[in-house]
Amino acid sequence: MAERTAGIIVIGNEILSGKVTDENSPYLASELRRLGVALRRIVTIPDEVDLIAEETRVFHAAFDFVFTSGGVGPTHDDVTIEGIARGLGRKVIRHPEMEENIRRFLKDNVNAAHLKMAEVPEGAVLVHDAELGFPTILVENMYILPGIPEILRKKFEGLRARFATEPFHLRVIYTRWSESMIAESLNQTMVEFPELMLGSYPKIDNPEYRVKLTIESKDGDYVRRAFDRLLGLLPAEAVVRTE
Amino acid sequence: MAERTAGIIVIGNEILSGKVTDENSPYLASELRRLGVALRRIVTIPDEVDLIAEETRVFHAAFDFVFTSGGVGPTHDDVTIEGIARGLGRKVIRHPEMEENIRRFLKDNVNAAHLKMAEVPEGAVLVHDAELGFPTILVENMYILPGIPEILRKKFEGLRARFATEPFHLRVIYTRWSESMIAESLNQTMVEFPELMLGSYPKIDNPEYRVKLTIESKDGDYVRRAFDRLLGLLPAEAVVRTE
Repeated sequence: MAERTAGIIVIGNEILSGKVTDENSPYLASELRRLGVALRRIVTIPDEVDLIAEETRVFHAAFDFVFTSGGVGPTHDDVTIEGIARGLGRKVIRHPEMEENIRRFLKDNVNAAHLKMAEVPEGAVLVHDAELGFPTILVENMYILPGIPEILRKKFEGLRARFATEPFHLRVIYTRWSESMIAESLNQTMVEFPELMLGSYPKIDNPEYRVKLTIESKDGDYVRRAFDRLLGLLPAEAVVRTE
Repeated sequence: MAERTAGIIVIGNEILSGKVTDENSPYLASELRRLGVALRRIVTIPDEVDLIAEETRVFHAAFDFVFTSGGVGPTHDDVTIEGIARGLGRKVIRHPEMEENIRRFLKDNVNAAHLKMAEVPEGAVLVHDAELGFPTILVENMYILPGIPEILRKKFEGLRARFATEPFHLRVIYTRWSESMIAESLNQTMVEFPELMLGSYPKIDNPEYRVKLTIESKDGDYVRRAFDRLLGLLPAEAVVRTE
């Protein structure tokens, strides 16, 4: 079963300094999961060219799809394009089509800051979206997305069909017993189903359950068998309900 | 001006798969900022020993303080202690004091899963908190925190006095002009105040302003002068208000 992987690079001093809470990586994480893509890593770094270049090199080589968020505006602190270009060993060029769009739209009001928005890593492709007026910049496997959540979401909506793959299958067991009391059953299940993604998430102060167990795989039959086995290992009085 | 730096390693498949939104790194980001600590990097990785070991090596060497979140419970997917130990080239041992606490509390009900909670990287120190019943594990510069937000916050409250340093000074200018229209004033300010942290954050669909500018430094006088200079460069009609 081929698994497609993804990584997210969040670029922004405002996140690291606690001024803004990152909404983009949680959004992309749940969208990618729904599409069957395995998100393997999220990193948040400052608006600094060298750091962006370094992460670009690592993520570009490690994952099928890479998404960057932030640092693509017209001001001095928008250095994502330069960082990605440097990470891929490419020059920054002004994209003729983007420049033309900007000039057509703004006519005589065009300034240097506007034209900075036409810059891309050399060899980048523009992915057009019928819905949205402006394209997404794609260079190799890297989708360069803006930091503003409303725009990032609209852009991703236009791209999502590209990423669809086999879905993950998921079953859930809620227990009224604590993790320490069910740990042995979980260990036994992992011995018998070594490929399983088995998550154990305690919840404090929840009146209904103490632990949420998630049983996952891309193989639906494997999930069914592992779910049945784990449910059989747990004493009936330990289980609140299943999903 | 000495600056203290920090990094956060978030460990958890549940975050990468979009099941849970990470509340811990936004909380730590804003707390660290308030304390004057420069958070330089956040990474979110799966519950896998090798990946945790790799990030441990990088973060341990790069930052003054490292915080990990998640992966410290009693079940099969809790491998943070092992990952950190491996990253630091240490063994995992059972800490006598933690074992004693667990045995005293649970008496004859103690099982292997409970005792897993007494494991620490060799040489780890227990940081006690009068408020909270159980200590935080500290090994070298790494504070090992749990993934459950309520507990992480309580633990951090008990630790925060350790991190206090000179605060950041911050002024804010809100503009009704777009980023493209003010970019030149920002560039000029950065030429004259190269050490300044100058952030430019556009907001869409906001009735009051279009861009929030943040002017920051650990040097209060530098911030005052840069703020005055930038305010002088911007046309009066571009400015909504300042903070």
